[in-house]
Amino acid sequence: MKKRHGKILSVLRFDSKGLIPAIVQDYKNKQVLMVAYMNRRALVKTLDTGKAHYWSRSRKKLWMKGETSGHIQKVKEIAIDCDSDSILLKVDQRVAACHEGYRSCFFRKLKGGKLVVSARKVKG
Amino acid sequence: MKKRHGKILSVLRFDSKGLIPAIVQDYKNKQVLMVAYMNRRALVKTLDTGKAHYWSRSRKKLWMKGETSGHIQKVKEIAIDCDSDSILLKVDQRVAACHEGYRSCFFRKLKGGKLVVSARKVKG
Repeated sequence: MKKRHGKILSVLRFDSKGLIPAIVQDYKNKQVLMVAYMNRRALVKTLDTGKAHYWSRSRKKLWMKGETSGHIQKVKEIAIDCDSDSILLKVDQRVAACHEGYRSCFFRKLKGGKLVVSARKVKG
Repeated sequence: MKKRHGKILSVLRFDSKGLIPAIVQDYKNKQVLMVAYMNRRALVKTLDTGKAHYWSRSRKKLWMKGETSGHIQKVKEIAIDCDSDSILLKVDQRVAACHEGYRSCFFRKLKGGKLVVSARKVKG
């Protein structure tokens, strides 16, 4: 399986912990949904299944987004940046990306020095 | 100056190197332009000037995006994610975000196992 993905795995620059940040964007309305981290295994799993997998830095394990919530991400497109040290995933996000029930994890905006919740929950 | 930005500085979780990733998005067409890193000083500079400043991990110095190229980023909106460990900047990007002359640093897409340049240069 890995051989099949040799090109992108050889180009990408994973950090000293073997991780690379993945920016996740709604492929339809272009909203930035979340930032997560991938190791090589998470990327290979993502490529093989078409569903986004990440490395949890807190739980120290591979996880598929939505494995418990059902809020999976079908990957529509993958791009990498000029330095090859970050990944952009365009996804079809089911329900909500954020575990707090918001569509996007970036639901707080800075306004006049304060952080203001600027979105409504899509899931209670 | 820092006092004025106390709220966001106290909420954000900078990593062990004092950095936080900033995702930069075109405020008009929502294209993801680049990923860069901020330390506290870069964020304060950004807030005080309205122009995006970052910490260069390779050059180990603070820089203003566009300080040599003129391709500055006027910050229109700042959001932070649920874990408070990444920042989303919506910006008015002059000319090109990428030093290679592309509007976005994410100009290579993965297609059939290959990386394909999927954008035209906007600048020589």
